[in-house]
Amino acid sequence: MRLETLLGIDVPVIQAPMAGSQGSALAIAVADAGGLGSLPCAVLGLGAMRDEIAAIRAATAKPFNVNFFCHATPAPDAAREAAWRQALAPYFAEYGIDPATVPVGPGRRPFDAEIAAGLADLRPPIVSFHFGLPADDLLARVRRWGAMVMATATTVAEACWLEARGVDVVIAQGLEAGGHRGHFLTEDPSLQMGTLALVRQVVRAVRVPVVAAGGIADAAGVAAARALGAAGVQVGTAYLSCPEAATSALHRAALASDAADTTAVTNLFTGRPARAIVNRLIRDLGPMSALAPAFPTAAFALAPLRAKAESLGRDDFSPLWAGQSARVGERVGAAELTRTLAAGFAGGA
Amino acid sequence: MRLETLLGIDVPVIQAPMAGSQGSALAIAVADAGGLGSLPCAVLGLGAMRDEIAAIRAATAKPFNVNFFCHATPAPDAAREAAWRQALAPYFAEYGIDPATVPVGPGRRPFDAEIAAGLADLRPPIVSFHFGLPADDLLARVRRWGAMVMATATTVAEACWLEARGVDVVIAQGLEAGGHRGHFLTEDPSLQMGTLALVRQVVRAVRVPVVAAGGIADAAGVAAARALGAAGVQVGTAYLSCPEAATSALHRAALASDAADTTAVTNLFTGRPARAIVNRLIRDLGPMSALAPAFPTAAFALAPLRAKAESLGRDDFSPLWAGQSARVGERVGAAELTRTLAAGFAGGA
Repeated sequence: MRLETLLGIDVPVIQAPMAGSQGSALAIAVADAGGLGSLPCAVLGLGAMRDEIAAIRAATAKPFNVNFFCHATPAPDAAREAAWRQALAPYFAEYGIDPATVPVGPGRRPFDAEIAAGLADLRPPIVSFHFGLPADDLLARVRRWGAMVMATATTVAEACWLEARGVDVVIAQGLEAGGHRGHFLTEDPSLQMGTLALVRQVVRAVRVPVVAAGGIADAAGVAAARALGAAGVQVGTAYLSCPEAATSALHRAALASDAADTTAVTNLFTGRPARAIVNRLIRDLGPMSALAPAFPTAAFALAPLRAKAESLGRDDFSPLWAGQSARVGERVGAAELTRTLAAGFAGGA
Repeated sequence: MRLETLLGIDVPVIQAPMAGSQGSALAIAVADAGGLGSLPCAVLGLGAMRDEIAAIRAATAKPFNVNFFCHATPAPDAAREAAWRQALAPYFAEYGIDPATVPVGPGRRPFDAEIAAGLADLRPPIVSFHFGLPADDLLARVRRWGAMVMATATTVAEACWLEARGVDVVIAQGLEAGGHRGHFLTEDPSLQMGTLALVRQVVRAVRVPVVAAGGIADAAGVAAARALGAAGVQVGTAYLSCPEAATSALHRAALASDAADTTAVTNLFTGRPARAIVNRLIRDLGPMSALAPAFPTAAFALAPLRAKAESLGRDDFSPLWAGQSARVGERVGAAELTRTLAAGFAGGA
């Protein structure tokens, strides 16, 4: 079945969920243009999630996607947290912050029974997962209200694993992609592939529709994905510069600058590998560091540094999520961007 | 001008030069099928180069490409070499090899005045360079006999640098590519992009024809490259399994096995980053190591280990060069592979 039919959308363009950088406004604009708008729920409480879904439904009758992370919440690790704060000590000193005052919060929350129960009343038509899938009973609850399920694969093995568990759509996330890598079967970076190589191999390996993600930012990129056999595309970074996104001014400026040419997969900001524009923290500590505590706790100690630096107009500690084609996209509204991308499918391949 | 017209070929498919794994036989088969066959000259002496070019000319009237590396030969560094042999000491002991007996040879040779002089008589129609370009006077000599010049770019900046120096064709080498990374303006891995992202951005940045390389192994990959605006493709790994290649049996077996799913960019084998299937040496020392001496000298100490291990049927120290789509290509002859790839251009995009 065509992806459009399966998801009830007009054009096979999915706006990637980008936690912290967008809410319902972006999803609504994309949905109204015929694409699939996504609401990232990893950093929302149940109340905010409810409000955002209500906002989407008030604005459009189109289907939409709610996205969740499926990580295991790590056990508290005081020693590792202390070592991390020690590594950041020079910055705390520089910015006059007492690291002892930095709270350890709940952080990004995995999809769990409480969310599943809250969501069951709301019956979002499409649910997508990152970092694998929730436990079987939770996934069964999602299916019970008739939701289509999408999930991210970064290897052929992950794609086959997802298909075997009944996922309706596999999102093949290549190395070009911005934000968190979705791998879940292995952390071996030697298995992570570029989008062109990955999409082709996933398309050959599974029978469900495959959505290409990573480095796609214009109609030509979409046409390439289609040539590889993808049924659709998921685009994130290009949407970050839309007025409907909640992207910070600092982040927008970085995306539009030469700095965006230099990105790295880094675990510093959250504890899990994610692609971001290289900034001071990454330069200082190296993109991948054993010092960063487990996802999502690495973010806690950085939060006050980030807030203080941002208040001074500096992006030294901000996660400037970006894929490798940040410079390719046009700076237009989300509806126009969606139509521009969709033209890559219409153009034939 | 179309790439085919520029190079005098029938289909815009370039067989990537693969030093150590192929000679004239593969180049001839590709040329006869209408693609561009390449002769890797980095490990050939002048005499062998002459013989191989004569063999191509005796077999076909089609144009062909001769390829050279443009590295600076490093000054001898006894301390670094000693540290490297120390790191390899357990292997020398295991295989009963006395490291003191390991010769330090000339190794891979950069394009130099002697080669330029020798080549001037032979007037190969197309010359390609990896790791940048030779000095201006040497490049001028190549141009004097009317050769078309191609060179590898791994970033937009490198592509613009090459175009500014009059290169006729830019080969955009994405991260998926097997073998040596062609970067030359910077070693920063954060600037290295996946093929999809790189090709699109290079196409937008330069006016000369762009050839896409990295992870392209079938007609769909070629169609994707075309959709991105590439004028042609360069394919390496898929040709390694052709009967016309000189690929070792161990290498062929690895390419056809599950091991080929796990590749890494490693500097262990030569001192420069290159993508290979992860084997024992890479697992033991990590893919990128400060211990590996400068290109090409890292290969010296490994040579007897590799020879001994290979004689025992083991690939522990062999550079199993491979891109990220090793499992995609069909196991067919070079002519059929060339025609199959060319169909990706003919198919429309």
